[in-house]
Amino acid sequence: MADSSSSRVVTAAILVIGDEILSGRTKDKNIGYIAEYLTNIGIDLREVRVVPDVEGEIVAALNALRSRYDHVFTTGGIGPTHDDITADSVARAFGVPIDVDPRAVALLLERIPKDQLNEARLRMARIPEGAALIENSVSKAPGFSIGNVHVMAGVPSIMQAMLDALAPRLATGKKMLSRSLAAGLKEGDIASALGAIQADFPDVSMGSYPSFDPATGFTTTLVLRSREESRLVAAEAAVAAMLAEVKARLGAG
Amino acid sequence: MADSSSSRVVTAAILVIGDEILSGRTKDKNIGYIAEYLTNIGIDLREVRVVPDVEGEIVAALNALRSRYDHVFTTGGIGPTHDDITADSVARAFGVPIDVDPRAVALLLERIPKDQLNEARLRMARIPEGAALIENSVSKAPGFSIGNVHVMAGVPSIMQAMLDALAPRLATGKKMLSRSLAAGLKEGDIASALGAIQADFPDVSMGSYPSFDPATGFTTTLVLRSREESRLVAAEAAVAAMLAEVKARLGAG
Repeated sequence: MADSSSSRVVTAAILVIGDEILSGRTKDKNIGYIAEYLTNIGIDLREVRVVPDVEGEIVAALNALRSRYDHVFTTGGIGPTHDDITADSVARAFGVPIDVDPRAVALLLERIPKDQLNEARLRMARIPEGAALIENSVSKAPGFSIGNVHVMAGVPSIMQAMLDALAPRLATGKKMLSRSLAAGLKEGDIASALGAIQADFPDVSMGSYPSFDPATGFTTTLVLRSREESRLVAAEAAVAAMLAEVKARLGAG
Repeated sequence: MADSSSSRVVTAAILVIGDEILSGRTKDKNIGYIAEYLTNIGIDLREVRVVPDVEGEIVAALNALRSRYDHVFTTGGIGPTHDDITADSVARAFGVPIDVDPRAVALLLERIPKDQLNEARLRMARIPEGAALIENSVSKAPGFSIGNVHVMAGVPSIMQAMLDALAPRLATGKKMLSRSLAAGLKEGDIASALGAIQADFPDVSMGSYPSFDPATGFTTTLVLRSREESRLVAAEAAVAAMLAEVKARLGAG
């Protein structure tokens, strides 16, 4: 990563563009994938938005997010059909011209015979002025980065290939570390004690996640997160001791 | 539905609240479920946001969304632990007091023995003033509706039960109808012709969704959407004729 030794916190947002996600016809698989990927390379995902294939909505969301976070990753809307308006919307958000880019045409010609490179397919080579291309090892039609905005495909396998191509160029920060503990107790039995430990470790984020099984009822997973290994170890020990104490008390009660 | 015969378009947004979604540890299952559910009952989902467990972020997103859409559905952050801050954040967004609600306590007591209803569990009975409860048939701790905001659990089985309880009370509009066609062609081969049909049917939304299989390459699903059955039938016929024409031409070429 370009900046992996940095102690700076690097933030990001995802903007998913697509009517099909909002209608429920397509179930998004990209948010969770990108979220986990960014965590693993030292980028903190802070916000996600899903907007329809409407230029004004895309531009407004993009401008809100790119001014606020270090990186914005978009998915969807870069194909050859009339509803693929992401590239033009990004150009409008940045106030730059957009046209068919010879570098992108050259990439398309690696896969598409010249006599099949019709006007529609050439739409996939429309790239805003000043953008860097993001390689697409699956099907060639590239994504692009402009400023702090990274424009990727919506098809998961292609988005994933683009993210692999893009990641080495991204500014990243100090990686968030985490520990996950299966509490084996209900949230309500540990909430007060956990809150007290959280107060003792303001620099370790402590999340409590219930899950429910109709047969066995509720149980809880605790997730501790910090950029400092030593603090994480200390917090984990405190939480483990608390869990043992609560179990002993409830067992004895 | 309260208003199902209406021809009005009723809009909605989803606000997912939770660090665990942004870290990628938990893969969201609620957005796609709610999206499909709303489409089926005549509510148009127009936007989704995911924000962390930070009061200022929740309040800002909530106020942006509730002023813009007919309904806002939130998921997550209504349990008993310190990181469950949704109810308090909603109260702050609306500028109303929040306290332990006797109606919610009565529901909790249906499941939790009185001597186990500790301070942490009573947090689940904190309901903003003026809110209506949303029944939770799975584990009793209720959600609530205040104004046009509907606050639900993050655990999918519980969220789904709450949505079933809530749906009959929601104002809904004329249902969006859709037809899905497997094109059997690549997007780039039909994009121009599809764009021309879209121009002929401005009242029918035509989406083109590529999928990619490493073995067989790209194919395309076309989704036509309209509130008028007759227009949908006419558009579907036009698209089917176009697909047959393109297949014949490519087959002959």
